[in-house]
Amino acid sequence: MENLTLKLIDQRFLPHELKIFETTEFEEVIFAIKNMAVRGSPAIGATAAYGMALASSQKMNAKQAAKALRGSRPTGYDLFFAVDFMLTAIEKGEDPLKAAKKYAEEVENRCKAIGLHGEKIIEDGFRILTHCNAGALATVDYGTALSPIRFAHYKGKKIFVYVDETRPKLQGAKLTAWELNQEGIDHAIIADNAAGHFMRKGEIDMVMVGADRITSTGDFANKIGTYEKAVLAKENKIPFYVAAPMNTFDFSLKNGEDIVIEERSEEEVLEINGHSIAPKGSRARNPVFDVTPSNYVTGFITERGILSRKELKKVRK
Amino acid sequence: MENLTLKLIDQRFLPHELKIFETTEFEEVIFAIKNMAVRGSPAIGATAAYGMALASSQKMNAKQAAKALRGSRPTGYDLFFAVDFMLTAIEKGEDPLKAAKKYAEEVENRCKAIGLHGEKIIEDGFRILTHCNAGALATVDYGTALSPIRFAHYKGKKIFVYVDETRPKLQGAKLTAWELNQEGIDHAIIADNAAGHFMRKGEIDMVMVGADRITSTGDFANKIGTYEKAVLAKENKIPFYVAAPMNTFDFSLKNGEDIVIEERSEEEVLEINGHSIAPKGSRARNPVFDVTPSNYVTGFITERGILSRKELKKVRK
Repeated sequence: MENLTLKLIDQRFLPHELKIFETTEFEEVIFAIKNMAVRGSPAIGATAAYGMALASSQKMNAKQAAKALRGSRPTGYDLFFAVDFMLTAIEKGEDPLKAAKKYAEEVENRCKAIGLHGEKIIEDGFRILTHCNAGALATVDYGTALSPIRFAHYKGKKIFVYVDETRPKLQGAKLTAWELNQEGIDHAIIADNAAGHFMRKGEIDMVMVGADRITSTGDFANKIGTYEKAVLAKENKIPFYVAAPMNTFDFSLKNGEDIVIEERSEEEVLEINGHSIAPKGSRARNPVFDVTPSNYVTGFITERGILSRKELKKVRK
Repeated sequence: MENLTLKLIDQRFLPHELKIFETTEFEEVIFAIKNMAVRGSPAIGATAAYGMALASSQKMNAKQAAKALRGSRPTGYDLFFAVDFMLTAIEKGEDPLKAAKKYAEEVENRCKAIGLHGEKIIEDGFRILTHCNAGALATVDYGTALSPIRFAHYKGKKIFVYVDETRPKLQGAKLTAWELNQEGIDHAIIADNAAGHFMRKGEIDMVMVGADRITSTGDFANKIGTYEKAVLAKENKIPFYVAAPMNTFDFSLKNGEDIVIEERSEEEVLEINGHSIAPKGSRARNPVFDVTPSNYVTGFITERGILSRKELKKVRK
């Protein structure tokens, strides 16, 4: 087996530079996930699948590689799902590279299906709020929350997207806005603080977000701030949809309290682009995900269609 | 009358530099308010009072000076209250500089009284969330929302403050954290997105914010994002207090829809400390205040004591 090279868009440099992260080293794959050169639960999953293939091409022990990958980020479920998928394929004697490609293709197909299902509930003229980046950059293509928005745009519906900038790492301002620009979809970046104001003024018709892990009861983890938008949407009677492939569901978890929430470094809050915004001596807290209880969710947009909370129970069985 | 010199802490340079904004020119006072070298409704009011005194020392027409000051920022009520106070004093033939000093002293006394009343509802061990900066920098001394926190600390109560960083202009991270550091009050800066998470986890006991304008029904305008925190506090059954002097009440306004909300430049969202965070071609929306309906407010902490919504009606009469 020849040496594998993994290539990714390095998301740390967007929107100002389109750099490619390129490596033949397994340790560098771990680095890319830990340091968020690649982020977004489905994209991390696909990267981990290729990471397993790369480890295999270098005769690394598959179980050790799996362990290292599982330790790279704690909250998103796709990472664990992808590693298990690859371990099973390798145990069965399948070609690891082919298996990784298959995994990535499946992610892409699921995202496309999510877009086609989700597009139907977006009405012409809708103003949609999204949080963080659940676009092509976070997946393999199309995105999860951005996939229905893309397909609504392709169908000629006139839509407008409010993009939460999404502190601390600004994935909304940096990545979602970049994707919407590429597609020519009308949008405005707003401070995370402003979403409630626009909801209350009746200027938002729908909220659409992704998910990093969904429990069997529908409680889900997503980027910090998602819970705030969900509560505000409910208070203002605005439909709130979660777009995610079925493999985001972790049926081993009963509810949101079982999800491990990653807390990252204080510097992500205390600095922006390497510049300090806070006085010396001030500390920060930096939970990067939160849990939104399922009672705030209007529906889950999956590759199998749009599921209500009640319908989740059936799927589980 | 000799030439007056106005001196202010230039809040654009905190927390990294303590610069003094010093001027003998009336136009520079307008500049300082418009460009937020001074900000916070009570501090803007005191600055406007001294601005009127400065204009008077230069034989400027008082009504023209009043008009220019009223046009400098639209949302906070103290500005208008202070200008009217000075116009009345000048018409009565009072010394303008003495009148301005009296105005500033009254602001300071009110803030102290707010602190002494508000301190009583802060229990030992409380973890308090505050948004934006309603501290000494925003007033003349003590602050509004920070005044009860200061006095609780002076009384030896062990408290912890969660400081919303408060995008887009980061007054929480830059100014509130700076003040808390000066006082040695334990705190952590958080992304605005994280407040809901900590509320849901039971780690916040009280929310305390300032106000820029309060209507006769208790709806109030404050920094963008205040409404989000108010909704989240209600959802999580956390008391939500507004600390503001009585002159923040604009009894000519019936409800929040009557308050003019300032929308500032897109660059405040698209750039942080002069560095672009968004792709070229992306637009932003930047409302810098929002309106919180009075039904989210547990009480108004004023210099006259703590008033419920119902008690507001009595005060009005």
